Amino acid sequence: MPSPIADYLSRLHADLSSLDAGALADYIPELAKAERSDFGICIVTLDGIAYSAGDADKRFTIQSISKPFVYAAALADRGQAFVSGKVGVEPSGDAFNSISLDPKTGAPKNPMINAGAIASTSLVRGDTADSQWQRIRAAMAAFIGREVEIEESIYRSESETGHRNRAIAWMLKNFGIIDHDDPMAPLENYFRQCSILVDCRDLAMMAVTLANRGVNPVTGQRALPAELTAPVLSVMATCGMYDYAGSWLYEVGMPAKSGVGGGIIAVLPGRFGIGIYSPLLDAKGNSVRGIEVCKRLSQDLQLNVFSHSSQPSMALSRVYTAAEVPSKRHYPAALRARIDPRASRIKYYTLHGPLAADGAEFITRRMLALADDSDCCILDLHQVTQITDSAARLFGHTHAQLAARGIAVVYSRLHGRESLRAALRRGMRAVDGPHGFLSFEDNDLAVQWCERRLIEADGDVGAEMSFAEAPLFRGLSAALLAQVEAMSWTEHFAKGDLILTAGQQNDRRIFAIESGFVSILLPLMNGDHHRIESMGPGSNFGELILLGATARSASASADSDVRLRVLDADDVHRLSATHPELKIALLENLARDVTYKLRRTNQSITALG
Amino acid sequence: MPSPIADYLSRLHADLSSLDAGALADYIPELAKAERSDFGICIVTLDGIAYSAGDADKRFTIQSISKPFVYAAALADRGQAFVSGKVGVEPSGDAFNSISLDPKTGAPKNPMINAGAIASTSLVRGDTADSQWQRIRAAMAAFIGREVEIEESIYRSESETGHRNRAIAWMLKNFGIIDHDDPMAPLENYFRQCSILVDCRDLAMMAVTLANRGVNPVTGQRALPAELTAPVLSVMATCGMYDYAGSWLYEVGMPAKSGVGGGIIAVLPGRFGIGIYSPLLDAKGNSVRGIEVCKRLSQDLQLNVFSHSSQPSMALSRVYTAAEVPSKRHYPAALRARIDPRASRIKYYTLHGPLAADGAEFITRRMLALADDSDCCILDLHQVTQITDSAARLFGHTHAQLAARGIAVVYSRLHGRESLRAALRRGMRAVDGPHGFLSFEDNDLAVQWCERRLIEADGDVGAEMSFAEAPLFRGLSAALLAQVEAMSWTEHFAKGDLILTAGQQNDRRIFAIESGFVSILLPLMNGDHHRIESMGPGSNFGELILLGATARSASASADSDVRLRVLDADDVHRLSATHPELKIALLENLARDVTYKLRRTNQSITALG
Repeated sequence: MPSPIADYLSRLHADLSSLDAGALADYIPELAKAERSDFGICIVTLDGIAYSAGDADKRFTIQSISKPFVYAAALADRGQAFVSGKVGVEPSGDAFNSISLDPKTGAPKNPMINAGAIASTSLVRGDTADSQWQRIRAAMAAFIGREVEIEESIYRSESETGHRNRAIAWMLKNFGIIDHDDPMAPLENYFRQCSILVDCRDLAMMAVTLANRGVNPVTGQRALPAELTAPVLSVMATCGMYDYAGSWLYEVGMPAKSGVGGGIIAVLPGRFGIGIYSPLLDAKGNSVRGIEVCKRLSQDLQLNVFSHSSQPSMALSRVYTAAEVPSKRHYPAALRARIDPRASRIKYYTLHGPLAADGAEFITRRMLALADDSDCCILDLHQVTQITDSAARLFGHTHAQLAARGIAVVYSRLHGRESLRAALRRGMRAVDGPHGFLSFEDNDLAVQWCERRLIEADGDVGAEMSFAEAPLFRGLSAALLAQVEAMSWTEHFAKGDLILTAGQQNDRRIFAIESGFVSILLPLMNGDHHRIESMGPGSNFGELILLGATARSASASADSDVRLRVLDADDVHRLSATHPELKIALLENLARDVTYKLRRTNQSITALG
Repeated sequence: MPSPIADYLSRLHADLSSLDAGALADYIPELAKAERSDFGICIVTLDGIAYSAGDADKRFTIQSISKPFVYAAALADRGQAFVSGKVGVEPSGDAFNSISLDPKTGAPKNPMINAGAIASTSLVRGDTADSQWQRIRAAMAAFIGREVEIEESIYRSESETGHRNRAIAWMLKNFGIIDHDDPMAPLENYFRQCSILVDCRDLAMMAVTLANRGVNPVTGQRALPAELTAPVLSVMATCGMYDYAGSWLYEVGMPAKSGVGGGIIAVLPGRFGIGIYSPLLDAKGNSVRGIEVCKRLSQDLQLNVFSHSSQPSMALSRVYTAAEVPSKRHYPAALRARIDPRASRIKYYTLHGPLAADGAEFITRRMLALADDSDCCILDLHQVTQITDSAARLFGHTHAQLAARGIAVVYSRLHGRESLRAALRRGMRAVDGPHGFLSFEDNDLAVQWCERRLIEADGDVGAEMSFAEAPLFRGLSAALLAQVEAMSWTEHFAKGDLILTAGQQNDRRIFAIESGFVSILLPLMNGDHHRIESMGPGSNFGELILLGATARSASASADSDVRLRVLDADDVHRLSATHPELKIALLENLARDVTYKLRRTNQSITALG
């Protein structure tokens, strides 16, 4: 089924195909050979899906669009401080081939004019011009996601006619901006980089790699350190469209770069990369249709860096408490009575999305506002994709503040996400105060820890409990309890023993825990188990066999040494004839317990919905 | 408890207080009277929370920071097309008081230099200079969120010494940029607007109003049409810091504006507004500490329009199916058998956040990818805060495509959110195809509609069913069913009748539906009801009274004319003595039914977690 974006691009392409203004570049004869009608558009999403229309596979030379990427390589190789001494970042107000050097230092005004681009080319890593060229090729390949080649005829032609650029290179040598003994060597690399062959899909991929903070979303390869993407984009924003920067940002609002080969790239940080090819150029050397496509995309898809529509409050999906979503652990009544009155002081915070300073401010503000009403905060990070250092520091700071007041902050669902965990720990180390970092695989384990903290605040937890405390037997008269005792026996299991196995037939036992802890486990397809419940003294399990099931639906495993009171379901069934009042009492208890669990579970759904 | 952001601002303020470079403005004597040590910082969040440090209440004159706001008012009053013929948007590369008019048209290069600002002032709505001044005052008041006043002594001084600006105004009159017969009248308004008194909290509030797409987050008042915020911010980005635009975006990455009064504002679209006051200026007329604060904030809090960290995939929180979360309606076995095999073809899509083109692309792509496996799509919009027109068009387009293939798209949880609903309907009207827009108050109603669509695809739904089909009686032997029949009776209710009332004591009836539909309602604090279940023929309700409750936990109301089979719980209890086998069978059925519901509910939680 055609995607609505693809449909939209087809219509846009058809609309603008009729635009026939502009001229082919003719400063070298090879460029004048392009087809006037060639026209391709491609948009790539942040997860690497490419939508295109028209001649998306037609190759052409990248020309000046190479400039921001080689500048990016120079920043990565030599550092921002060093590079900023060699190339400025101010719009020149002049045409692309102006020399525009700072009268004092000789530094080109910016890396998007030829002088600044040649300087950038001379700055990338490499002992020789040859190894620098390999570096440039590799950098371009990392952005595009494939090896690159150059169009030899265009390269030769550029080199043969590039006298103005030779003058620029010597001027840069004169000012010490280029260090090479022979400035002609890096200049040849500049001619080569301009002759790299791309199609508009490649351009969109390069653009989206900048939009994706330096990682090519298809190959997963990092092409540029994340912190260098904003500087490169800012230079594209102010200097990318030659002497047109103000109007460009005003009308289009996207960092962009054009080349006389007919290509344009535009970048929507965090959202899209765009590549366009149409070789008809306006007087300033920009693709006429390319500019029109960018304007229409900006308008129709509302793409503009200045109309960012995120909302910090969306970083916090919800706040709820253990009163609404208690742990799945079954507590005997005495412990439940310790937990229930304060369960609402255990707060869950469900975080969402990439967390930056604004979202973290919103969340930590809420945590502080609820502090008087909190004993524990569980930060559920399942839906968090990344966290900036500034956001992590805000969490670290807030964690320390709350800890100083005796409020625990624990983290949940960070399993297998080392970069998030590392960022949070860095954030905690950045502040003074207690540095405990407690992290749980799931919310249930986290809330159990918090519930235990509540219980222990009131003194020791009873280690043993009569089976009569279990829900299945609760409220039975002494006579009925004596009957149960007479028909039941005791079993012991050691830590790690499997008490029940899911799928097992013909096991008819019903258990009540008198001491120790048991986990109820659901087998997963991959051979692992999912822990669905955890039980201590005063709980019962396996009782659903009374309702007619033949096989066990879950396994049970001993988390410690356990002592169990055991009944046989067939003995219970026989009570219908001999002691119906006991059977009725047990069934009523069973139904009551399941009803209670259903109520709690429905409450949880309301809290989670 | 102090917020970590407030702590951070205090440290930043302390750090930079020692910075004593720069000089007070002295072109009029009043400005030179400022205190060198005055220094205030304020950040306001998108929801209107202000954090400040230092002299946040110290007032000063706004000076050039008025320029983007008066320009904004001119855009709002006269339209972008008209204004762009009068004032350009290109950085001038010159100082703030340069004349920089286009040699042909006489249009000032941009609205941030004096010439462009005076032109903007002359363009705001109003028949007379007086009424224009009222318009400017009102515009500023809307941004700040309070009435404004001017510092008379500074205004008089500006007016007395503003000869260069008089020359500019006459030049603008000469080129027809200013229409007034006497250009000195709007010029006086310009002097007045520069003399408006603000503190840095006011500046931060003005900035956050731009960040919030034109709405002051404290007053909720719209100060500027949403679509004009991006153009204003783009002009601030390229021209706001005089001949420093490139470096500013490179180092700070925020649209900003400074004034010789010592103020600076900076805007992080969709995130923060920032205001700073320190009257020590550098040679370019920018506050020395103010610039330093912006650099530090950009670095420390990672605030930069070009390092936007959102991820389109976060717009789709989850996708799950009616196999995991079926409706709460109880279907008799025959209908359940029609639904179950295809329940996974009903898909829920939980949408999240403000939806723009990138997020909508991700969601609709997923909907199309799952189309072969879908009969109905439920779009849950509960967590959607806003939707752009471009996103709404993508949904409209996808809706029409799916509808053409017989796949229904329905919307859920739009209740009371007219602007979202209107945007979605506009998006649907923008495409050809079926225009049905079905919207449900909650997911349960939506999935019931989808389940009914599945059932009806297989022919008519039985309208009547024996009580023996209800879970409570299912599987009973003919002899036991005859006993039930003997001890039960029939009751009829009309549509709208209340069958049970929550809280009611001493009502011991248990019901099975033989025809018609019944809703189970939970009374809410505000007098409303929350519908927790919906039941048709073959369902039973009220049976939990068997487990010992004395009062009803929910109400039941007839959604149509209904015929019910009714039992008395006390009669059932008496069965213990007379017919224990019937009582045991009923309790087993009850426990089985609750267990079944608990399993389904636990599945739902897994799908929602």
